[in-house]
Amino acid sequence: MKVGFIGLGNMGGAMAARLLAAGHELTVYNRSADKTRPLVALGARLATRVAEACHGDAVITMLANDEALERTAFDQGGLIASCERGLTHISMSTISISLSARIAAAHAEAGQAFIAAPVFGRPEAAAAGKLFIIAAGERARVDACETLFSVLGQKTFYLGTEPTAANVVKLSGNFLIASVLESLGEAMALTAKAGVDQRAFLDVLTSTLFNAPVYKTYGSMIVEQRFEPAGFAATFGLKDIRLALAVGDHLNVPLPLASLLRDRFLALLAQGGESLDWSAISRLSFTDAGQGHAPP
Amino acid sequence: MKVGFIGLGNMGGAMAARLLAAGHELTVYNRSADKTRPLVALGARLATRVAEACHGDAVITMLANDEALERTAFDQGGLIASCERGLTHISMSTISISLSARIAAAHAEAGQAFIAAPVFGRPEAAAAGKLFIIAAGERARVDACETLFSVLGQKTFYLGTEPTAANVVKLSGNFLIASVLESLGEAMALTAKAGVDQRAFLDVLTSTLFNAPVYKTYGSMIVEQRFEPAGFAATFGLKDIRLALAVGDHLNVPLPLASLLRDRFLALLAQGGESLDWSAISRLSFTDAGQGHAPP
Amino acid sequence: MKVGFIGLGNMGGAMAARLLAAGHELTVYNRSADKTRPLVALGARLATRVAEACHGDAVITMLANDEALERTAFDQGGLIASCERGLTHISMSTISISLSARIAAAHAEAGQAFIAAPVFGRPEAAAAGKLFIIAAGERARVDACETLFSVLGQKTFYLGTEPTAANVVKLSGNFLIASVLESLGEAMALTAKAGVDQRAFLDVLTSTLFNAPVYKTYGSMIVEQRFEPAGFAATFGLKDIRLALAVGDHLNVPLPLASLLRDRFLALLAQGGESLDWSAISRLSFTDAGQGHAPP
Amino acid sequence: MKVGFIGLGNMGGAMAARLLAAGHELTVYNRSADKTRPLVALGARLATRVAEACHGDAVITMLANDEALERTAFDQGGLIASCERGLTHISMSTISISLSARIAAAHAEAGQAFIAAPVFGRPEAAAAGKLFIIAAGERARVDACETLFSVLGQKTFYLGTEPTAANVVKLSGNFLIASVLESLGEAMALTAKAGVDQRAFLDVLTSTLFNAPVYKTYGSMIVEQRFEPAGFAATFGLKDIRLALAVGDHLNVPLPLASLLRDRFLALLAQGGESLDWSAISRLSFTDAGQGHAPP
Repeated sequence: MKVGFIGLGNMGGAMAARLLAAGHELTVYNRSADKTRPLVALGARLATRVAEACHGDAVITMLANDEALERTAFDQGGLIASCERGLTHISMSTISISLSARIAAAHAEAGQAFIAAPVFGRPEAAAAGKLFIIAAGERARVDACETLFSVLGQKTFYLGTEPTAANVVKLSGNFLIASVLESLGEAMALTAKAGVDQRAFLDVLTSTLFNAPVYKTYGSMIVEQRFEPAGFAATFGLKDIRLALAVGDHLNVPLPLASLLRDRFLALLAQGGESLDWSAISRLSFTDAGQGHAPP
Repeated sequence: MKVGFIGLGNMGGAMAARLLAAGHELTVYNRSADKTRPLVALGARLATRVAEACHGDAVITMLANDEALERTAFDQGGLIASCERGLTHISMSTISISLSARIAAAHAEAGQAFIAAPVFGRPEAAAAGKLFIIAAGERARVDACETLFSVLGQKTFYLGTEPTAANVVKLSGNFLIASVLESLGEAMALTAKAGVDQRAFLDVLTSTLFNAPVYKTYGSMIVEQRFEPAGFAATFGLKDIRLALAVGDHLNVPLPLASLLRDRFLALLAQGGESLDWSAISRLSFTDAGQGHAPP
Repeated sequence: MKVGFIGLGNMGGAMAARLLAAGHELTVYNRSADKTRPLVALGARLATRVAEACHGDAVITMLANDEALERTAFDQGGLIASCERGLTHISMSTISISLSARIAAAHAEAGQAFIAAPVFGRPEAAAAGKLFIIAAGERARVDACETLFSVLGQKTFYLGTEPTAANVVKLSGNFLIASVLESLGEAMALTAKAGVDQRAFLDVLTSTLFNAPVYKTYGSMIVEQRFEPAGFAATFGLKDIRLALAVGDHLNVPLPLASLLRDRFLALLAQGGESLDWSAISRLSFTDAGQGHAPP
Repeated sequence: MKVGFIGLGNMGGAMAARLLAAGHELTVYNRSADKTRPLVALGARLATRVAEACHGDAVITMLANDEALERTAFDQGGLIASCERGLTHISMSTISISLSARIAAAHAEAGQAFIAAPVFGRPEAAAAGKLFIIAAGERARVDACETLFSVLGQKTFYLGTEPTAANVVKLSGNFLIASVLESLGEAMALTAKAGVDQRAFLDVLTSTLFNAPVYKTYGSMIVEQRFEPAGFAATFGLKDIRLALAVGDHLNVPLPLASLLRDRFLALLAQGGESLDWSAISRLSFTDAGQGHAPP
C-alpha cells in the first residue's frame, strides 16, 4: 500500500521500518528531520511538510501525545486540511478520547476516513512485528488496513465502529498495568520488610496465578530495582493515567485506584524520577516504609 | 505416612480425601462431626478429640481462621499439649503471622516441630491435587513432608526457615488477587460506561499482557456478574486483607491499595454481600458510577 | 468609582447591587440580559456588549467558570481587546491558575492592569457585604480597589504581587471545606451506625475544638440531611476540586485527600446529585455503610 | 468525694492534682511509683496495689492504652475483682469500644457501676480544668460525678446510657482532628510550592471559615514545622486512628479518609517520627511533593 507515516520516535521508527521491509511504499514525516534519515536510507520518500504525507491509501500517525497530534491534525496544512478523499487516517498513538472524537468528527465533516488503532507493546515488540493492535472504526476500513496491521502486530482486535472505543481500551490497559506495578510495589515492600526473599516471592507469583508477561517483566525490574533505561518513562505513565482519569471525569466514573496511581506518579516526578521507567513507582512503597531511598 | 488431619471444610475435606486415596493413614478430626463421615467411609480413622489426631508422623491443620486454629492449638487437650515429639505440625490455613509466630514459639518450647504450608488454589484444585504449596520451616522437615505435598499440590515452594515467611507470602498473594479484582472493576466500569463491549475488552486483556489464570477466571465472573455461588466468599476476602494490613501495621508498611480494598470489602458486606464471591467488590465500581445496582 | 460589572449570577448580582447602593457608578453586562434588569432598575447602566463595560476605573468579572471568563476575556470585542489603559480588571471568580496566568499575561502585554480577587462567602454574605476577599496583584492597584472591596467584604487579605497566588488560596480554601465535608460524613456515618445521637455528637464538636462556621453550617445540614436548595452545588464543588488537583498536577504535588474528594463528587453526580449542595457527598459515607439511600 | 485515681501520666497527674486542690480525698496508684510522689506531697494517699484504690465513691482510670487498662481491670486483684459495690468506675482514657464494652459488661455482672468519660484537651487544659468531658452511662451516675467533672473540665457532654457511645465520640473527634492535619498538610504543600506565603495563607484560613482552635494551633505548628516536643505523639495518633478503624471494621463502615490517615502515620513511624507531634504527618505532603526532608 501507499502510506504516509507521521511520527518517527522509538515506536514509530520501528513500525515504519517494518512496513518498508514488507514492501509498502512509505512517505515519512517527522518534526525533527534527523529521525527520517534511517528510513529514507531504507527507501522511504521524505516529506518536509505534513501535507506531503497525506496522499495514497493511508496515513499513520504515531505521535508522543495529544498536543503533537492536535497540531498535526488541525494546524494549517495539517491532516484535516490535506488528506485526500479515499485515504484513511490511522491514529495509532495513545491519546485522549476527546481528541480522538474531535479528529473523528473533523474527518467525517471533511468526507475523510478515520480509524483509531492504538497498540500494546514496547519498541522491541514493534521492531519484531509483535504488537497487539486495538482497532475501531468503520469495519471495512479496518479490514482494508489489515495488510498493514499484520506487518506491525501479532493480532488485531476489533472494538466496533466508534473510534474512541479503541482509545478507551488502550488507556484502560495501561491503567491495569500501572495497577500491577502499584500492587507489586506494596506486596514487595511488605514481604521484603518481613524478611522474605524477593526472588523466591516473585517466583511463587509468576509460577502460579500471575503467570503473565506483565508480572514477569515488571516483577524482575522491581526485584532488581532496575528502572533505567526506561522502556516506558514515568512521564508517559502519568500522561496515560491522566487520560484514563479524564475519561472517568467526563463520564462520572470514580476511579480510586487510578487516583492513587496519579498521586504516585506525581510523587515520583516531584522526586526527580521523570525519566525512570514507570515501574519505579513501586519504589515509593519502599520509601514510605522507611526502606531504602527514593529513586533516582 | 501416618497423618492427623484437623479441619474438614471445602478445602480440608478434599485434601484429606486425596491423602487417603494415595495410601496415607489418616486420623481425621472436625468440630462438627458430620464432615468426617465421607472420609471415614474412605477409610480414615475418626478422632473425637484433637488430641487423638496428634500421633504419627504429622498433623495437618486446615481451619477457617485464626480463632479456630488458636483454639485448636492452645486449648486444653489441644495441639501444643498433645503433639508427640517427632511429629510435625503442618499449618496449611491462611492465618495471621502473629498467630503463626506464637504457635511456632509454643511448639519450639515444647520440643515439637512446626512448619507453615499455606496453599493457593480453590477446592477444585485441592480435589485435583493441583494446589500450589508455600512452605517454610526447617528444611529437613519440609522435605520430609514432600510425600504429602506432592499428593496435594502441583508444586511446593520453599520460602526459608522462618515459618511466618510462608504466611506473609500467602497473604500477599491474596492481596495481589484482590488488587486485580479492584483494577478490573474500575476498568470495566469505565469501558462499559464508554460503550465498549465487555467481552471484547476482556478478550483483549487475556489475549495480551494479562494472559494469566487470575484475569481469565475473575474477568469472566465480572463480565457475567456471576458472583454466586462463591468460590471464595467476600468475608474471607476481607479477613485476608485485614491480615495483610495487620502485617503492615506491625512492620510500619503503609499499604494504600490494601486500605482501599479493605474499604471495598466493608462496603460490600454493609450492603449484604458477605456470601458473594469476593470478586463482587468489582460491582462497587459500577454502582459508584451510577451503573446497575449494588449486589446482591 | 466608575465600574463595569460582568457576570450577574447569584453572587455577582448581589455584589453589583451593593456597589450601586454605595454610590458607585456601574455599567452591567450579563450574557442573558434578564439578570441585568433588577440592577438597571437600581440605577446601573446597561451594556449590551462586553466592550461597553470596559470603561472607567475598573471592570469586575464574576463568572461561573473558566470557559465563561475565557470567552469574555479573549473573544473578539472581549476584555483584552477593549479595556482602556489605566482601568483595572478585577477577576473575582474562582478560576484555574492557568487561566489567571494567561489573562494576567495578556493584560500585561496590552499595558493593562489586572488583579485577582476571589472571595469566600455565599450569596447571603455577598448581599450583606460580608465576603472575605483574597487579593493579589500590584500593591497600589489592590489598595486603589479597597474602596470597592470594603463595600463587598468584611476583610481584604493581600497575598502578594502574583495574581495567581490569590487563586491558589481560594482553591485551597474550597479544598479544605470539602475535606471537612468528607471527614464529617465519615465520622457521622460511624457514630450513627454505633447508635450515637447525631445532634449530640455535632454539639460536642462545635462546642469544643471545631467551633468554626464551616463545622456549624455544614454539620447541621448533614445531620438534617438537608441538601436542597443548594447553597453551593455539587457541580461547583467538583469543578473546584478539579482546579485544585490541576494545580497539583502542574506543580507535581500529590493530593490524596483531594483525589478522594474528586471521586466522591463524581459518584454523587453519577447518582444524580449534581444540583444538591456539595455537602451531600457526606451521604456517600452512609450509603457505603449500608445506611439509607444515596441522594437524592 | 473519696476517689481512687489510677494512671498518673501527663494527663492523669494534672487531673489528680486538680481534684486534690479542690478538696477531694484521693488515693493514687501508678505502675511506676515515682509518678505518685508529687501527688502524695499534695496530700494524696498512696496505693501500692490497684485494689487499694478501689474504695470510696469512685475510681478514675486514665491510662495510656487498651493494654494498660485491660490489665488494670481484669488482672488478679484488678478493678473488677476489687471494686466495692456502690463505687463508680469512671474510665477517662481513650480506648477501644470493644474493651469499653467488655469492662462495662464485667462491672454489670459484678453489680458494679461503670461510666465512660473520655476527654478532649491536652495536658495544659487538664492542669487548667479546661477539658471537655464526654460522658456516657446511667444518667444518675454521670450526674453524681459532675462534682468531679466540674473540677476537671469546662463542660460535660452527656451522650446517653451506653458507655461505648462516649468512646466512639472521642475516637471520632480525634479522627476529625487528624483529618484537619492531613488537609492542612496537603493545602500547605500545594500553596507553598505555588509560592504563596504560608503565614498569610494561614491567616486567611483562621480569620475566615476556619476560625477554630484546631486550625490555629496546628496551623502554626505546621507553618513553623515545629513538631517537638510532642503535645500528642504520632504513636498515639496512630493508636486512635486504628481504634476508629476498628469501630468501622466491627460495624462495616468504610472510612477512606481514616485509611489514608493510618497509612500516613505508618509512613511517619517508618521514617522515625514516632515521638514527633502527630501534626508531623503534614510533612509527608511536602516530602511527597519533593519539598524538604522527611521528619525528623
